[in-house]
Amino acid sequence: MSAKPTSRDIRTANRYEVLRQIIARSPTSRQELAAATGLSLATVATLVGELLDLGMLTEVGFEDSAGGRPRGLVAVNASGGTLIGVDIAETYVRVELFDLALDLLARACEEMGPGEKHPEQVVAQVTAAVGSVVSQAGAAGARVLGVGVSVPGQVDRDRGVCAYAANWDWHDVPLLDLLAEHIDHPLYLDNPLRACTVAELWFGAARGRGDAVVVNLGTGVGAGLALGGGLHRGVSNSAGEWGHTTLVLDGRLCHCGNHGCVETYVGALGIMLNLRELSPRSPLLHPEDQTATIDALARGVAAQDPVAFEVLRETARYLGAGISDLVNLLNPEVVVLSSWVATALGEPLLREVRAAVGRRALRRPFAATDIVLSPITTDPVCLGAATFALEGALRSPRRGHTQPPEPAAMARSSTAPPS
Amino acid sequence: MSAKPTSRDIRTANRYEVLRQIIARSPTSRQELAAATGLSLATVATLVGELLDLGMLTEVGFEDSAGGRPRGLVAVNASGGTLIGVDIAETYVRVELFDLALDLLARACEEMGPGEKHPEQVVAQVTAAVGSVVSQAGAAGARVLGVGVSVPGQVDRDRGVCAYAANWDWHDVPLLDLLAEHIDHPLYLDNPLRACTVAELWFGAARGRGDAVVVNLGTGVGAGLALGGGLHRGVSNSAGEWGHTTLVLDGRLCHCGNHGCVETYVGALGIMLNLRELSPRSPLLHPEDQTATIDALARGVAAQDPVAFEVLRETARYLGAGISDLVNLLNPEVVVLSSWVATALGEPLLREVRAAVGRRALRRPFAATDIVLSPITTDPVCLGAATFALEGALRSPRRGHTQPPEPAAMARSSTAPPS
Ligand SMILES: [Zn+2]
Ligand SMILES: [Zn+2]
Repeated sequence: MSAKPTSRDIRTANRYEVLRQIIARSPTSRQELAAATGLSLATVATLVGELLDLGMLTEVGFEDSAGGRPRGLVAVNASGGTLIGVDIAETYVRVELFDLALDLLARACEEMGPGEKHPEQVVAQVTAAVGSVVSQAGAAGARVLGVGVSVPGQVDRDRGVCAYAANWDWHDVPLLDLLAEHIDHPLYLDNPLRACTVAELWFGAARGRGDAVVVNLGTGVGAGLALGGGLHRGVSNSAGEWGHTTLVLDGRLCHCGNHGCVETYVGALGIMLNLRELSPRSPLLHPEDQTATIDALARGVAAQDPVAFEVLRETARYLGAGISDLVNLLNPEVVVLSSWVATALGEPLLREVRAAVGRRALRRPFAATDIVLSPITTDPVCLGAATFALEGALRSPRRGHTQPPEPAAMARSSTAPPS
Repeated sequence: MSAKPTSRDIRTANRYEVLRQIIARSPTSRQELAAATGLSLATVATLVGELLDLGMLTEVGFEDSAGGRPRGLVAVNASGGTLIGVDIAETYVRVELFDLALDLLARACEEMGPGEKHPEQVVAQVTAAVGSVVSQAGAAGARVLGVGVSVPGQVDRDRGVCAYAANWDWHDVPLLDLLAEHIDHPLYLDNPLRACTVAELWFGAARGRGDAVVVNLGTGVGAGLALGGGLHRGVSNSAGEWGHTTLVLDGRLCHCGNHGCVETYVGALGIMLNLRELSPRSPLLHPEDQTATIDALARGVAAQDPVAFEVLRETARYLGAGISDLVNLLNPEVVVLSSWVATALGEPLLREVRAAVGRRALRRPFAATDIVLSPITTDPVCLGAATFALEGALRSPRRGHTQPPEPAAMARSSTAPPS
């Protein structure tokens, strides 16, 4: 792996940054973009020109500039192409189709039974759901630039392989090749942790921040790292396994084989255990149902139930220690709490966590860090997966163009004689 | 803080990379450099031209290329300037002067008594030691491009301020301004953790590696992060405080105010406590002397003393858990063990740590990570501090040139009429 960024990397990063800004403030002028990105006006003009040529932007008129020439305004060309995000989870497959401004156009969801864990079954569900959103979207469904796919576990992104998914006992499943037999668009594979993080980076609380950590609190727990404006993937794309860092040496047994991992205290099952240790017969506890238990806790906290509140505090104490580790080690500008457990416990959890981190983290890095709830209200995994497809289209713009989805484009390409 | 690297950043990073390669393989050709760095031959030629103009490189002849034109060879111009590295520690100030190939030319060391903790006293010691190396180095002492200064604690690098040094109870000491009253060269301030890390990045085990973690094991403990080919500093230059991440919730009291920090188990004092818990009256224990105790442990391990070996294993168990956290969270290509405790316990510690991490870390990131002892045999803090000065000279080449240390240069500058 190369140690240094190449000029190609920087061109791609600049292209991302310009499009991010345009999505955030459409319509906008090249002058505004230069001010917002810190790039020179000439560089912005070149990048905007490329994006116009690709059909990703459109000219939408002029604005007056005080005393000067009117400035041309550009906006995202919402009809310039669409992006699909696929969220493969343990119990469902959710697929969303977006326009280029990442506004949602269509959605499909397929439930998966506990027995449906064979790769071919998952591929069939994904194929069906992708077919559904494409046909729902009508004309827009014919302009798909790419499909981002999020699958739980450890992903070899370059080979498109799911290296290990604990819950399905998958080992080295070539998921992208299997999907490519049915889906005729550029495909990009990664996992939910990275999808959520890239969603925060483009559209959420990490936007424009130097270094950000996206703490995912669900059944599984992880910390997506957005450092220096991009995802930190690590050398084999497995960075972020904060859920399996040690909080209590020789503590609770974790399914990874270790003891005392963060996940065993602040994941949904860990929180259930916190409740059980505090009050074994609490009516808040739904032994076989994580979601019901977390929801009951949230309602209990709102109703000032003392047991619910004590569980919240104890969970925040663990979470605060784990987040302090991230603050002390990485000195981020923002820590974002994301995923369904964070959404369910919301502001009361945030308040307790902030206080716990304040008691524990070193003063200087703590003073530099905001801790916030994710502002993304839609499914961040689908949004992030679609963003991987957008990044792919920006990285290798021609890949999108080799797809001939539009009749007009097909007619053009058919002018070449068959070989 | 800007979220994205600028083209200026990338030019600087490329300049670093080319000079790193030339230092490693002097003399070398532009073609070899292009192959080693992945940069285009044109880019390499431009960067080499800049470094030649700055007097940092020199042309040293030609080599035959099979059938082609002879290739020009360049080497570091050892007499093109010198760099000074200052290591301010609790008990001494060490200063080293290097040529541009970072070969050591002169060294000075001043002891500091326990009472000497006032900033003015430290500044006087540093000034005296810098004066000493400059006069020892003779003519080379007149060509100083910059002085890098490492001071323990948390450093505000841009303002040149020591924000907090626990052992001296320093708060917001403007050290660089104080030094600038006595030292007439560009000055660069940072801390020992970052100095060691940049030394590994340029000259040690992190060279050419994608992502590296430099684990510093001394009285204090930290983890310098070299991510994507550069130092990860965090948003307020305080990243790397791994010593104050939690290993044992509610465990041993740490001087930071928390309980169970990594440092309390694997720092020199933590290791002494591991020994005391195992064998309170062990003759290995020198209650008031960390260095003597660690040395006694190292000799005990070499002599197969069972208590010494048990302490080593227990320390490696803690250290293995803490390093597993770094492997799982960051997925680095290499973890480097550095500083005096790692040097003293050496290979036996490395062996036990590797085994402990192998038992604990997730399989995929562990498989991608080498764990090694630092290959740097000189003082890594002085070397790293001098490297900060070299980076400064490469970042803003003119800053070095505004210093008129050479009589010739002074004669040239005196052609301008006095204002
Ligand atoms: Zn675990
Ligand atoms: Zn501590």
